[in-house]
Amino acid sequence: MNPRAFSFLASAEGPWQILSNVAVKGAPLASAARLNVLDSYLPALPENAAWLLRGVTSNSRYVTDDEKRELLAKQAPIGRAECTRAALIPIRKNAAWWDLAQSERRAIFEERSHHTRASLKYLPAIARRLHRCRDLAIAEPFDFLTFFDYQQRDSEAFEELVGQLRRSEEWQYVEREVDIRLAR
Amino acid sequence: MNPRAFSFLASAEGPWQILSNVAVKGAPLASAARLNVLDSYLPALPENAAWLLRGVTSNSRYVTDDEKRELLAKQAPIGRAECTRAALIPIRKNAAWWDLAQSERRAIFEERSHHTRASLKYLPAIARRLHRCRDLAIAEPFDFLTFFDYQQRDSEAFEELVGQLRRSEEWQYVEREVDIRLAR
Repeated sequence: MNPRAFSFLASAEGPWQILSNVAVKGAPLASAARLNVLDSYLPALPENAAWLLRGVTSNSRYVTDDEKRELLAKQAPIGRAECTRAALIPIRKNAAWWDLAQSERRAIFEERSHHTRASLKYLPAIARRLHRCRDLAIAEPFDFLTFFDYQQRDSEAFEELVGQLRRSEEWQYVEREVDIRLAR
Repeated sequence: MNPRAFSFLASAEGPWQILSNVAVKGAPLASAARLNVLDSYLPALPENAAWLLRGVTSNSRYVTDDEKRELLAKQAPIGRAECTRAALIPIRKNAAWWDLAQSERRAIFEERSHHTRASLKYLPAIARRLHRCRDLAIAEPFDFLTFFDYQQRDSEAFEELVGQLRRSEEWQYVEREVDIRLAR
């Protein structure tokens, strides 16, 4: 198994309580009480579970050397004990995005949408782990699963960050997005 | 299943005769008589098969707008009837490569190694399809599988292309490479 694979399983069990589950764009995900985050690839939906999303962490795709150094210097890992709030945001981008050349995707992502620059402002308070799903052998309904965790006092900062990204040019290429908020 | 998934199965059967199977760097692959190229993800090695490699075609990662336009204008698809020669070249790059930022990988790949520029010279004679394996849920032994096909008369041109790429700075990051030549 790929050691960078993760599974997000929604059911009646798990350490995270699902506070809200909102379809921002496109089809919703079924409602469920709790979420379990597993650091492995779960091959099939267990009985009585609501849904299962899977992804693999990978190398960076859009950052420059300087941006990468700044991210590494500032970011915190997922899982700090004091982080009792979290969000799982599955996203699918449209065919027009994937048809763009790398240089054009980079220009939209950073030069015009400031994805990394906006996120750096909220480090290390808001930790982020990006899982990619588009190139898995078994097709997934989303291209990315981003998992964030933070302290309750940083909830407003998280809304700011998410709002800023959703108003960006990059987000015009998002064709499906669900926003799941969690507490433990 | 992901419609972009492919499997390369070496055994006693298949349309391609394996002419040679050389470990360029690192561990070799077991010898076999023939290769089958399947446009689906084969979940397990069939009985009596020598080996199975799997990958998924995906969006471009290093090209500019101009390079992408030039590639699309010149390239031919895999599978032309007159292409009776082919090559499968599985490659794994080292951790140092994957730790680089996107901008640094691009600089090595194109500004300093001229990967795309060198390949463009051989289009449309040499067709190429790149399959990525690094982010599959079930870990694969390689990061990339590149499949090429061409007419017998272009065999020397293919040697030139492969030789040029192997002498590049990019190739210093290759930690395992096998070169499999095929005929039908």
